[in-house]
Amino acid sequence: MLTEMGKRAKAAAMVLYNASSETKDLALTYAAEALIANQETILAANAEDVEKGNASGLTNALIDRLTLTEERIKGIADGMLAVRDLPDPVGAVLDEFTHKNGMKIVKKAVPLGVIGVIFEARPNVSADSAALCLKSGNASILRGGKEAIKSNIAIVSLIRDAIEKAGLPRDCVQLIEDTTRQSSIDLMHLDGYIDLLIPRGGQGLIQAVKRESSVPVIETGAGTCHIYVAPSADLDMAANVIFNAKTSRPSVCNAVECILINSVCAEDALPRIAEKLRTKNVEMRGDSRTLKILPDAVPASDSDWGKEYDDYIIAIKVVDSLDEAIDHIRTYSTFHSESIITEDPEEAARFMNAIDCAAVYWNVSTRFTDGGEFGMGAEIGISTQKLHARGPLGLKQLCSEKYYIYGNGQVR
Amino acid sequence: MLTEMGKRAKAAAMVLYNASSETKDLALTYAAEALIANQETILAANAEDVEKGNASGLTNALIDRLTLTEERIKGIADGMLAVRDLPDPVGAVLDEFTHKNGMKIVKKAVPLGVIGVIFEARPNVSADSAALCLKSGNASILRGGKEAIKSNIAIVSLIRDAIEKAGLPRDCVQLIEDTTRQSSIDLMHLDGYIDLLIPRGGQGLIQAVKRESSVPVIETGAGTCHIYVAPSADLDMAANVIFNAKTSRPSVCNAVECILINSVCAEDALPRIAEKLRTKNVEMRGDSRTLKILPDAVPASDSDWGKEYDDYIIAIKVVDSLDEAIDHIRTYSTFHSESIITEDPEEAARFMNAIDCAAVYWNVSTRFTDGGEFGMGAEIGISTQKLHARGPLGLKQLCSEKYYIYGNGQVR
Repeated sequence: MLTEMGKRAKAAAMVLYNASSETKDLALTYAAEALIANQETILAANAEDVEKGNASGLTNALIDRLTLTEERIKGIADGMLAVRDLPDPVGAVLDEFTHKNGMKIVKKAVPLGVIGVIFEARPNVSADSAALCLKSGNASILRGGKEAIKSNIAIVSLIRDAIEKAGLPRDCVQLIEDTTRQSSIDLMHLDGYIDLLIPRGGQGLIQAVKRESSVPVIETGAGTCHIYVAPSADLDMAANVIFNAKTSRPSVCNAVECILINSVCAEDALPRIAEKLRTKNVEMRGDSRTLKILPDAVPASDSDWGKEYDDYIIAIKVVDSLDEAIDHIRTYSTFHSESIITEDPEEAARFMNAIDCAAVYWNVSTRFTDGGEFGMGAEIGISTQKLHARGPLGLKQLCSEKYYIYGNGQVR
Repeated sequence: MLTEMGKRAKAAAMVLYNASSETKDLALTYAAEALIANQETILAANAEDVEKGNASGLTNALIDRLTLTEERIKGIADGMLAVRDLPDPVGAVLDEFTHKNGMKIVKKAVPLGVIGVIFEARPNVSADSAALCLKSGNASILRGGKEAIKSNIAIVSLIRDAIEKAGLPRDCVQLIEDTTRQSSIDLMHLDGYIDLLIPRGGQGLIQAVKRESSVPVIETGAGTCHIYVAPSADLDMAANVIFNAKTSRPSVCNAVECILINSVCAEDALPRIAEKLRTKNVEMRGDSRTLKILPDAVPASDSDWGKEYDDYIIAIKVVDSLDEAIDHIRTYSTFHSESIITEDPEEAARFMNAIDCAAVYWNVSTRFTDGGEFGMGAEIGISTQKLHARGPLGLKQLCSEKYYIYGNGQVR
């Protein structure tokens, strides 16, 4: 069954590969309008998902993520229009030169082809992924979690109608309605049909997809971010940045999970940092030297280092040097975002050059690793791998490249 | 054992990650000098390989590839100096902008880390791969074929001495001396230590590495290239281009393997093309319509379509339309290089947009898909995949990217 879906996706991708910006934008306009015009249908489908979720004992947090409202549907539609309004990445000239024999070589951005997206319970991800793939000229095969299946079916069906109305094949976007584990595994092995598979969700999902897939995958999203406070740090700045990086949105991958404080400034810095964190009831898990300075911290265990809490919890360790901080981060980094707070430019440079991850910060909160903040508009995830693209995956990163060579009979 | 090698490579890579251009260039200068100064040692080691090769019945072609001479060693040393003289790709600013909150975001090229290279019998590949990896700031682990092991040991040992003399860790380049199949498989599973594995060799090797590896791989090199001759083609140009693409170096991946001729011009075109090909005794394998025009062609079987001969053999098929040519290429393409010969710009554009491969040519021989010809200097292979990089893999393509964010306390 997935092979048939793969064939349809590939055929649609060939049409989309050369579709005009106007046609793709029209499809996104129609889709956004359809979501608003048919919100009753979507809400009714969503109510079924929510009812089933309540019956099966989903946590309040999950029910909240799953639940759609008029306002949230408006948000989804607006998100599709925002993607529509970004520049079309396809056809951009990436490099260009004329060979001494007169032929012209132009490297251009082209769509990848077919993108698979595996995600969990949030129904907005289906519309969001479909829009990013469509705008970048890629057909998509979406496989969402069973919790949101009725909502996803309603949303994707409206999007497919809109795509057809704009004159493109409806199979530019397809949803796998079978939500058994097997359908997910089948997608991971749809070799020859999937050009890129992106897991959107927690670390468990990402690692499972990475391990199991035989199609190309980009690892996204896992983020155990650290902030190192150096001896020369402006301690008010350190406290502000840490407070922001931990509490502005603890559930996201660019939130800080562990702070490392140089022993030279730990006695001054930690009480100030802790004072701010306490206002949001952040649980502080410290090593033995932290505990001596912060009596209300709880002892950290080995499993706290490298842990992604995604919650109001933070690990704290006192270190004696920049090298010790670098070693700790190298050991536990998920290659997402790491920051140093220091007034010493040389130390900042050493830290930023020594740590190899998607984003290194100097005197800034880690919370900025995000497509919108980096000027690329919407994103489909944060790549924490080294090949293809690193950091936010925007429209450009959903493209491949291709050399066009124009000549008049050149031979070698 | 490979884990230990992986650890040493990773430690060396951390030093190399921030090594200056001067230091890396010095290492390459010393290495080139050492190869020349110690050519007797290399030639003696190579003689052992050749003797063993002869005893074990290697073909003349393989013995030729394996054999080193003073001139070939000079060529290898010159190749290392040519890589030295290319611009250092590390640290190049790929993108840069200032956020409205005042922080500066700079995307820079950084080394990938540790690159594994698996190759076959040609001993020059060890020096060549080591030089490209070193210049791009990457540690390398080389695994060459057993036929050239003595030669590779001699060459890599001299390179390691040179690297140390320049003040870098000798483990920046390591050679796996165990040439059993198992050592190759172990390298493909050195997860956590290898950032990229590149197979350099025939299609069998490439597919095996792709199938087996759990570390990231870039597929390179397989090339079944096609040339389509359209009704409006300049037939002399067509004959010249095809002759060049087939016979200038039949053993390489950018040589043409199959030509598709529109039926409108087949009767005019084929005799002219065949006349040139006969001067090099190229075996022509044609479909039934070709056989009617070229009595000396042999009948093509199904297995000829999509076949990479790497030899003085060419497949020929008469087609009735551009669409039929596109369909044939889409079915049999290895996503390397495809060319159209036509005087009609619209037809050329349709072909170039419809065919999704690394390089599409209009009125040019496919033989130009090559790092040197594309202006990037040396290359480690031709990527035929869509992620990370497509076409020649030069120094820039051996890099990852990293965001550096400079601020003064920005929070979100």
